[in-house]
Amino acid sequence: MAVERKRWQREFGDWFHQVIWESGLMDYRYPVKGCGVWLPYGFKLRNNVLNLMRRLLDETGHEETLFPLMITSDMVKKEAIHVKSFEDQLFWVTKAGDRKLDEELALRPTSETAIYPMMQLWIRSHADLPKRVYQVVNTFRYETKATRPLIRVREISTFKEAHTFHATFEEAERQVEEAVRIYSQFFDSLAIPYVVSKRPEWDKFPGALYSIAYDTVLPDGKVLQIGTVHNLAQNFSKAFDITFENAEGLREYVWQTCYGISERVIAALIAVHGDDKGLILPPGVAPIQAVVIPIPYKSKEAAVTEKSREIKKVLEKAGVRVWLDERDKLTPGSKFYEWELKGVPLRIEIGPRDLEFRNLTLVRRDTMEKFQVPEEEAASRVLETFSEIQSSLSRKASEWLRQRIHQAGNPEEAVALFREKQGIVEVGWCSKERCGLTWEEETGLQVLGIAWGETSLNGGVCPICGEKVGRVLRLGKPY
Amino acid sequence: MAVERKRWQREFGDWFHQVIWESGLMDYRYPVKGCGVWLPYGFKLRNNVLNLMRRLLDETGHEETLFPLMITSDMVKKEAIHVKSFEDQLFWVTKAGDRKLDEELALRPTSETAIYPMMQLWIRSHADLPKRVYQVVNTFRYETKATRPLIRVREISTFKEAHTFHATFEEAERQVEEAVRIYSQFFDSLAIPYVVSKRPEWDKFPGALYSIAYDTVLPDGKVLQIGTVHNLAQNFSKAFDITFENAEGLREYVWQTCYGISERVIAALIAVHGDDKGLILPPGVAPIQAVVIPIPYKSKEAAVTEKSREIKKVLEKAGVRVWLDERDKLTPGSKFYEWELKGVPLRIEIGPRDLEFRNLTLVRRDTMEKFQVPEEEAASRVLETFSEIQSSLSRKASEWLRQRIHQAGNPEEAVALFREKQGIVEVGWCSKERCGLTWEEETGLQVLGIAWGETSLNGGVCPICGEKVGRVLRLGKPY
Repeated sequence: MAVERKRWQREFGDWFHQVIWESGLMDYRYPVKGCGVWLPYGFKLRNNVLNLMRRLLDETGHEETLFPLMITSDMVKKEAIHVKSFEDQLFWVTKAGDRKLDEELALRPTSETAIYPMMQLWIRSHADLPKRVYQVVNTFRYETKATRPLIRVREISTFKEAHTFHATFEEAERQVEEAVRIYSQFFDSLAIPYVVSKRPEWDKFPGALYSIAYDTVLPDGKVLQIGTVHNLAQNFSKAFDITFENAEGLREYVWQTCYGISERVIAALIAVHGDDKGLILPPGVAPIQAVVIPIPYKSKEAAVTEKSREIKKVLEKAGVRVWLDERDKLTPGSKFYEWELKGVPLRIEIGPRDLEFRNLTLVRRDTMEKFQVPEEEAASRVLETFSEIQSSLSRKASEWLRQRIHQAGNPEEAVALFREKQGIVEVGWCSKERCGLTWEEETGLQVLGIAWGETSLNGGVCPICGEKVGRVLRLGKPY
Repeated sequence: MAVERKRWQREFGDWFHQVIWESGLMDYRYPVKGCGVWLPYGFKLRNNVLNLMRRLLDETGHEETLFPLMITSDMVKKEAIHVKSFEDQLFWVTKAGDRKLDEELALRPTSETAIYPMMQLWIRSHADLPKRVYQVVNTFRYETKATRPLIRVREISTFKEAHTFHATFEEAERQVEEAVRIYSQFFDSLAIPYVVSKRPEWDKFPGALYSIAYDTVLPDGKVLQIGTVHNLAQNFSKAFDITFENAEGLREYVWQTCYGISERVIAALIAVHGDDKGLILPPGVAPIQAVVIPIPYKSKEAAVTEKSREIKKVLEKAGVRVWLDERDKLTPGSKFYEWELKGVPLRIEIGPRDLEFRNLTLVRRDTMEKFQVPEEEAASRVLETFSEIQSSLSRKASEWLRQRIHQAGNPEEAVALFREKQGIVEVGWCSKERCGLTWEEETGLQVLGIAWGETSLNGGVCPICGEKVGRVLRLGKPY
């Protein structure tokens, strides 16, 4: 039954396609290009990831809402810079049945223009602020480049967008910091390593004052943007006329932020932790955290079955998402193969020798390490192993990213480093846009931005203009 | 702050619009007709209702999935009868940016035609059967009639559809029974009363062998369809070529069923239980089950506050979704007004007298009954009151529906009964389509179908053709 498995790092692109489908996450053979189906196993993973995010947002005063999908062209066009950047990618509904619609309707590419006209109705006074809403929806962009599962799609099936509204610029600034704290905690929980960069002026979210982005590096050395946080200042509130009455009774425009993640988070989760055998899922979000596999042996079948069921119950009671694989037509070996592919963090084998010594045999998916634990300690040892797996995945992934961030002194060095090692190249920057663009031209790489929240750099001069360097500029090849 | 409240029964249409918006469930002022926004309170209610359904489906072997929104015209047109009934209502995406698409894409009106091409790939052998999937998605229909919140909309924001695949007709029949059991349990949990009817041939789901529908009666006497179950036989599997290899190695077409509910369930929940003061939500799905309102009284403020916080914690620990309303700028009276409007099942008042006697004052939203319980029994008495409210809502709602089902012997009687009492009129039927259609013509009512699962009727003759009557036929004015 085993087909040739693509190798995780050397054949990353093919590995990624293959493992998404074979592990039961998604199927992209759907007849519309760039649109995939979430299969039951994938849907559960998606839910666990989203629920992690929901918990973080709910705890910090965000309320979940759901806005309509279609947007009138009037709404879409209100913020001029914003629409300009999206308009080539908008899908338009122009007819119903065979009747032409009086007004063409766009499928949301993101929901600023759907949400803000309603906020204009809802926000009246400073007592209504701050206001923080979010939603998890599908969004649509007509990608003309080659599509790629979970990374570049036409229906983004999983877009979590938060939008916040404040009385002052300072409060919006604090919200940006809060969003960065939330997202960092979210990615940390998933053991996804990242760098946080302030995007350069020429690559910020259209309509934003500035944009902050989370980037990670995939096994092919390319950079994947996995989350963004934007300070919108009053750009949208002016376009959509969202005002409030301040404590002095005067009308002011609200200050806004927005921040989003998409199914790219799951792409990163798959890509960063995987190996040649398939997925490796962190226990925190794995749909099945442990699989119990009975190893039957002549005349011991009944006892093995009974013990396996007992252990399953014990683990369930301890809150473990456990699966007992009792399929009798498959050999233990083919079960191992399948659950390894699906990335289940822990395998528990129960065979005649385990019965005899009142042991369980545990096999960690991440390290493939095999060890025995006493049966009566099943629950505690399993939970303990989960947290070891989680920390180990975090450590390994951070180390992985660390090794893919390089420092270069000039464009030639940057090119050489990138050619050899890919990933992200950090260079000193004088903060002038012109030199930033020259870095891009001379390296063929793209500016990711400056390191967010890090103190300014002292030392060295810009190899392009010769002026003093004050910032760390990051360069890479983004998806 | 109180605006004039519309009356629940006498001004039902206006009441319904008003209460949905003022209670914080939804806002339909969105700029696209027939599309509404779920507000935070409404979104939580929607979630609780959906999670009830998810639990029932997950327990019975259904797996949640998520399919794309857009469907190619080839896919849409595969099942001829099916497409014919929808084609006037299909929204079409015809361009991206300003480029015409090579292939026009429909927004799903329901997902048969999105799901079945994938099943054609996934189902290979009898070992893959039965297969049961479901999803909760938005669907789109260009309604030309007047739209109405939650009832007749262009974006159905909440459509739960299940699709099942079987090796035999008998198994599909059993699945239909299972679906009826699941839906009955679902509506029972929501205390929504219903009749189950087999729709007449001329009103079944396009492409189905037969359709079963859940109907309820709203305060205006009109009938609302709130759920449907269809046996699709092999109609779609033949159109989409979904086959399996049976145990003898022969290819056969699968047998299918599908069943769905929408946000109309929430419309029914609002309409059936409401009153002149606003919503009345069953405790099982209420976003807030109990609200604690401190009644401050000179010099006792601190003690009242302290006790209120303590009770909130006690209830939270007992698993109650409780809210403590500490807003100090509002009088208790205006808080009562607001939480009554929002339908919170139980109000807990804590004032100086309650402190003195170590009591809590409980007020039931459904009956407005007010009573004291000893403070130390808070959790148990609150939980007990929830189940009393739940049973009482069920009893009241069933009785309500029972009183709106009438029996008539001939068309004139049916017309007179309906004019006086609205609701559903039951008549004897000879089972001939011609007589069914004559019933419709002569009464101006619509045939809902025959009573599902009830034994056949003996006695009487059809007043139209004079032949023996064998079935109960239901008539009403559906939304």
